[in-house]
Amino acid sequence: MSQLRKDPILGRWVIIAEERARRPTDFTPLPETPSKGACPFCEGNEHMTPKEIFAYRNPGSSPNGPGWKIRVVSNKYPALRVEGNLDKRGDGIYDRMNGIGAHEVIIETPEHVTSITDIPDEHVADIINIYKERMLDLKKDKRFLSGMLFKNVGAASGASLEHTHSQLIILPSVPIRVKQEMDGSMEFFKYRGRCVYCDIIRQESEQKERVVCEIDSFIAIAPYASRFPFEVWILPKQHQSHFEDITESDLWGIVKCLKTVLIKLESTLERPPYNYMIHTSPFNTNNMEYYHWHIEITPRLTRVAGFEWGTGFYINPVLPEQAAKFLREVQL
Amino acid sequence: MSQLRKDPILGRWVIIAEERARRPTDFTPLPETPSKGACPFCEGNEHMTPKEIFAYRNPGSSPNGPGWKIRVVSNKYPALRVEGNLDKRGDGIYDRMNGIGAHEVIIETPEHVTSITDIPDEHVADIINIYKERMLDLKKDKRFLSGMLFKNVGAASGASLEHTHSQLIILPSVPIRVKQEMDGSMEFFKYRGRCVYCDIIRQESEQKERVVCEIDSFIAIAPYASRFPFEVWILPKQHQSHFEDITESDLWGIVKCLKTVLIKLESTLERPPYNYMIHTSPFNTNNMEYYHWHIEITPRLTRVAGFEWGTGFYINPVLPEQAAKFLREVQL
Repeated sequence: MSQLRKDPILGRWVIIAEERARRPTDFTPLPETPSKGACPFCEGNEHMTPKEIFAYRNPGSSPNGPGWKIRVVSNKYPALRVEGNLDKRGDGIYDRMNGIGAHEVIIETPEHVTSITDIPDEHVADIINIYKERMLDLKKDKRFLSGMLFKNVGAASGASLEHTHSQLIILPSVPIRVKQEMDGSMEFFKYRGRCVYCDIIRQESEQKERVVCEIDSFIAIAPYASRFPFEVWILPKQHQSHFEDITESDLWGIVKCLKTVLIKLESTLERPPYNYMIHTSPFNTNNMEYYHWHIEITPRLTRVAGFEWGTGFYINPVLPEQAAKFLREVQL
Repeated sequence: MSQLRKDPILGRWVIIAEERARRPTDFTPLPETPSKGACPFCEGNEHMTPKEIFAYRNPGSSPNGPGWKIRVVSNKYPALRVEGNLDKRGDGIYDRMNGIGAHEVIIETPEHVTSITDIPDEHVADIINIYKERMLDLKKDKRFLSGMLFKNVGAASGASLEHTHSQLIILPSVPIRVKQEMDGSMEFFKYRGRCVYCDIIRQESEQKERVVCEIDSFIAIAPYASRFPFEVWILPKQHQSHFEDITESDLWGIVKCLKTVLIKLESTLERPPYNYMIHTSPFNTNNMEYYHWHIEITPRLTRVAGFEWGTGFYINPVLPEQAAKFLREVQL
């Protein structure tokens, strides 16, 4: 059983995945991405993954066999497990609990496709709908406090398989980054009675220079204080605090806006490694006035070194206004 | 002139280094580390670096020529510059200022040595003394609020040159990570009237299981909530808030403790890529009861992916107790 441990200074929780424990000599260079034939995410190789949790399947097909469109399985090396109790306890000045949670992989297509941009809109809408459904399902479990949906593309982003997929991690605590966003936006709300993200959207819509695109009810911007070159945030233009509460029509908006931004990034940067992550409110909250869910897309083009790690102070060599201009000019 | 921009939600400052601005097509794989002959940090190649700011030199030798022991120069691609004024201003809801500060490189030896552990103790004491002297010198400039001393070793840590060196970045603001440590330790102090780091040292000294070594007035531990495999913190056992105020005898203690820990890491992990960084109090403070300076050493053995970036929630596959045991058992 892995453990969750809390840093007593920062309040940051860390997963100590005891089950993965290795000897020091095991820290050899990371393995190569497996070639097409051996890909555990391809149709026909269902036996190579843990058991199916959920899937969109052809009528008559059986779980853990071929005939699916999108498949959700447990991560083969899960950081957290669903079974067990939290067993929260102190250890002197420290705090810990059991590594209870969920760690799922959403295999986005049976074909060996490496980018979600190569998948038709209707199919991407099903993927986003599965994001929503898995969040709503796991949110029912009162042990869990937050869920993170994310995607790693390319080895430099941390991906170990190239077959297009996303991940969902469900946690019994609120990650420090989410907590800091909550605290920061609550502070802003206290002084001004407005959502800071709504204010950002208003200013960006007026100034235009950092807007990448506006599609349906979503806006994509290069954030004013971008940490990374070509960082892009996608936000619903109307205030919404919880991703999993999106409506059917907003789901189509996010599909079109996300695909457009990713196609523009892939075209401008020649299919760069990137991550995206959905930042959304904790499960034990409802319709919060001060927090606004959004997607952060971060291409991995620059090295992140000791300075950034130690300080949280990023050096970005590309003006956000310039990045937005490059992306705006891509013709689709 | 680069800019400092503040994220309006998190309060995180980012350096937008306009001068480094590149076209998207310039983001090609990073260049190889230059070979020995072309190393700009080797004696005889002084013309390959920006002008010398400070050096320990042989009597009679001239600045920017051979005959030195340790040399401090500006970073060739500085993120911040000393000249100019801050020109703090708002931009709607955003905040910015000019990229004023300092970005220095400490070239630790004239020989092409790749690890500080291959340098004799007396020489390492001179390096640490230069850390201290540069901090004290730049602290006099009232525009500056904080200084970060750090070292990147190996390409995976972000180092672009293998010749052993450190860097110093001086900032006109307090980086978010330092601010969060200050806030967290002040919170602890408010409730308990004690320094949280002093409490950690007390508990670790008693429990022993996470202690790597204790040398003179310093203790090295694998922190309870380590983010990375084999992460090690070195702390002065007596409460001290400012690194640059270390005494002559403590300077020898840190030399011996730091070298011992690095030799143990190099032996256990076969010369891993790593970063270290000195976490210390902002310049505009004095002898703070609640904050405790320390060095954080983070080997770079695991990939950091979207999940960690988006959440600040790290997955560490090695128990800190196990890492400390491996390191304790290394015979020097």
